[in-house]
Amino acid sequence: MNVPLTPLRCLERALDLFADRVGIVCGDESFTYAQFGERCRKLACAIQMLGVQPGDRVAFLSFNTHRLLEGYYGVPMARAIVMPLNVRLSLAELTDIFCHSGARVVFSESDFAPLVEQLKAACPGVVRWITLDTAYEDLLASASPAPLDIFAVDENDVAELFYTSGSTGTPKGVMLTHRNLYMHALEISLATARREAMVDLHTIPLFHANGWGRPQSSTMLGNKQVMVRRFDPSFVFQSIQQHRATDMSLVPTMANMLLNSPDLGKYDISSMREIMIGGAAASPELIARLEAAFQCRVVAGYGLTETCPALTTGRHKPGLGFKDEQDRYRRQAMAGWPLPGVRVRVVDIHDSDVPRDGQSIGEIVAQGDVVTAGYYKDQAATDAVIRDNWFHTGDMAVWDAEGYVHIVDRKKEIIISGGENISSLEVERAIYAHESVLECAVVSAPDERWGEIPAAIVALKPGRNLTESELLEFLQNRLGRFKLPRLIEFTDEPLPKTGTGKVRKLLLRERFWSDKQKRVQG
Amino acid sequence: MNVPLTPLRCLERALDLFADRVGIVCGDESFTYAQFGERCRKLACAIQMLGVQPGDRVAFLSFNTHRLLEGYYGVPMARAIVMPLNVRLSLAELTDIFCHSGARVVFSESDFAPLVEQLKAACPGVVRWITLDTAYEDLLASASPAPLDIFAVDENDVAELFYTSGSTGTPKGVMLTHRNLYMHALEISLATARREAMVDLHTIPLFHANGWGRPQSSTMLGNKQVMVRRFDPSFVFQSIQQHRATDMSLVPTMANMLLNSPDLGKYDISSMREIMIGGAAASPELIARLEAAFQCRVVAGYGLTETCPALTTGRHKPGLGFKDEQDRYRRQAMAGWPLPGVRVRVVDIHDSDVPRDGQSIGEIVAQGDVVTAGYYKDQAATDAVIRDNWFHTGDMAVWDAEGYVHIVDRKKEIIISGGENISSLEVERAIYAHESVLECAVVSAPDERWGEIPAAIVALKPGRNLTESELLEFLQNRLGRFKLPRLIEFTDEPLPKTGTGKVRKLLLRERFWSDKQKRVQG
Repeated sequence: MNVPLTPLRCLERALDLFADRVGIVCGDESFTYAQFGERCRKLACAIQMLGVQPGDRVAFLSFNTHRLLEGYYGVPMARAIVMPLNVRLSLAELTDIFCHSGARVVFSESDFAPLVEQLKAACPGVVRWITLDTAYEDLLASASPAPLDIFAVDENDVAELFYTSGSTGTPKGVMLTHRNLYMHALEISLATARREAMVDLHTIPLFHANGWGRPQSSTMLGNKQVMVRRFDPSFVFQSIQQHRATDMSLVPTMANMLLNSPDLGKYDISSMREIMIGGAAASPELIARLEAAFQCRVVAGYGLTETCPALTTGRHKPGLGFKDEQDRYRRQAMAGWPLPGVRVRVVDIHDSDVPRDGQSIGEIVAQGDVVTAGYYKDQAATDAVIRDNWFHTGDMAVWDAEGYVHIVDRKKEIIISGGENISSLEVERAIYAHESVLECAVVSAPDERWGEIPAAIVALKPGRNLTESELLEFLQNRLGRFKLPRLIEFTDEPLPKTGTGKVRKLLLRERFWSDKQKRVQG
Repeated sequence: MNVPLTPLRCLERALDLFADRVGIVCGDESFTYAQFGERCRKLACAIQMLGVQPGDRVAFLSFNTHRLLEGYYGVPMARAIVMPLNVRLSLAELTDIFCHSGARVVFSESDFAPLVEQLKAACPGVVRWITLDTAYEDLLASASPAPLDIFAVDENDVAELFYTSGSTGTPKGVMLTHRNLYMHALEISLATARREAMVDLHTIPLFHANGWGRPQSSTMLGNKQVMVRRFDPSFVFQSIQQHRATDMSLVPTMANMLLNSPDLGKYDISSMREIMIGGAAASPELIARLEAAFQCRVVAGYGLTETCPALTTGRHKPGLGFKDEQDRYRRQAMAGWPLPGVRVRVVDIHDSDVPRDGQSIGEIVAQGDVVTAGYYKDQAATDAVIRDNWFHTGDMAVWDAEGYVHIVDRKKEIIISGGENISSLEVERAIYAHESVLECAVVSAPDERWGEIPAAIVALKPGRNLTESELLEFLQNRLGRFKLPRLIEFTDEPLPKTGTGKVRKLLLRERFWSDKQKRVQG
């Protein structure tokens, strides 16, 4: 019997087995899975009444709310494609995405009303704009629950479409099929320490990389899911205490915000059992500090929007011993080893494995059920990254005999200075080790002699002082001479970030390449 | 990207990530996954050299050995179908199976040489008979490792064929596809308490019901697998001690043999973490006694050959509280609640759900990735059990609001006496509660007045005495009057059992229906 592989089965399972349990908590509201499921089914019916056809794109412009989560189920239930959008995108970016995707219906929070007014003029292809407030509730009230018919689904149909900003300016729509998403739910659950009886805090925006795969797996397992509408340290601590949250995911920037928050220590956070760090490289120090602060296991993970997203995590590999606690932190801070169902290799430019010596740098390629069907209406871009059944991630890494992968940089963020490859991440980690540093980014800057040089932008913790020469002296013991930043800029502003808290390094990089006045010779 | 769903990926993962770990232990021999994988790949090549074509059936007549486990991978790798046979089958039964399946190659342990000589004459369709000793090793030595090419597999092809004895005398071949088996590996892993870092004792014959799904899941997780060639309590205890085994599966008869063995207490069995009970109904008392003896978690499970096999287990359901330890044993002794990916309902003759009241009896129907593609060359039998995407198990059960299923009997083992439905299992459980009883079976016997009556066959523990009237007096407080056995036979012999230790109730039943002299009026 072939039962279609679809994330709708996650909801079906919650309805079969956890109907009366509180499933979703969102601010002051909470919903049992029965209530949540009925709302999803009404949404499916409602958008069909609006004329949405199978395969049509239905967009959401929303922070983390129960209504966005309803979109994850209600839209695919109508056999349409849900398209959660990054709320930090500009008018021009959103216009590009609406035009490229041909979205027919857009749901948006009222926070974005002025933006939506401008979008309406720019995107005539959208036939309905619905506000995620009483308008949405009225729409649900007008509908009756659609049937949850798993066998009507073609598992190879696209269920979700995520636009990545990309580096070229052209938005790329990552197509995730029903099969991609359901297999991811099974596989990520297998890599989670205690997969059932979780209280899952949705700290990562759901619009980012399939919400890190949590909407499906947590629903399948009947976990309580607590929405964090916008990331705020106090609210996170308070939510952990109030709901006895056990699991959450963080990007390093969020993790640092929690660690540096004056509210750390003011709440009971003893319920936490596992924190997943992703989205950017974690350091062993960060893992150690988080484990000390939260008294729970903290492991890094690695993946991409194109892979639903999880490929690897730094969880303990059976049979692997640790020399000491430092060694354990080091392992847990790595991208780690593959989930069941995922294969990962690190390859050279000829697609041959680089030695598994922890030294040789190559590109990570991945194979598995979670790899995207490709980029929407962009076969050339698809063919550029999926070749011979391997997805080329663009991330540069080393690996070892145990299959642990350690990322050294994005392919395009490797700085090539005088013929030497410099990992911007390595330089950043060295700078982060200074106790006065709040955050930093290292990017390439142009240089006539060396081609490229590493340039550092550094924000200090409040009340701290640090000079360029002091920092360079600090770094001299930690980095080879050729890796030392040739340009250091201190800033009082927070570094510019993406919707998920990643530093926008491409933006920082642009400044140097467009404004050569600032360039400093090494 | 659609990566074919095939159990070959379990081996591929072990080779990618656990190549140098000891994978298989078999008597005095042990193999790393690299060594095991190479043997599987050579087997694939060797059978192709013998002329085996994709889709051909390759049979194994073997106790639990590394060679049988190699068949699980080597045969499907050659895109042929592996057919592990119950070693307790008779010449006539095996002849029927070889003829029905059209097996081309048969591998057999030398223990079965006399039987094989007779089979050779009866089964001219088999082109090669190979002994699982030096002949097998020579065959491997002559071959080079076949490529492990996952993308060459059609996930809907049949990978394994298991013949069930059936009740009608006609053997039925259960077809398990690559997709069935791989999804089962993922799903059973999700229902196992600690799925990695297991040392898995293969106590259940692999030829039975896909070895309870362990060959795939344990390989995928890189666990050490210790073969128990034939079940023997002393050997089991010794193996647990020697290999620090953590997990095993038992039928209740095996469990009783371990509990009653004089060797219990003589070995260090403290490494055990989880014992799964299946194949027949477990009692709360059995769960309690095993937990006390092994100091680990013991849970029942339920499934069929037709479902790879696992559908449900009695593991703890998150959010469910226990009144006391008795209540916990009661829950853990149930068939339990579905694995991820499995749906189960209990339905009446109109395929409508019976009330979830723990009282109303109906038939268990199941839906999921693990349900067989059907019976080999028997569409009528397939259509009889798979209707409207639900597989009809023939097992009668009650269920409750939590989705826990509790089996009351096989459909054909319900005794209908004077219009009352009597569960033979319920009567057996009551008899088992008597401290003098070693084992028992309750079957229907013919009766002119009542149509059928319950008849009990009882074997006592050594040195115990019990009369019919004493037993009836004991049962009177435990069973409604109409459920009391009208006929009780005591026997000094062990009850006849299947290859997996299940009591052959149909055989016991036959005696009464073919020999009406023994019938006793109620």
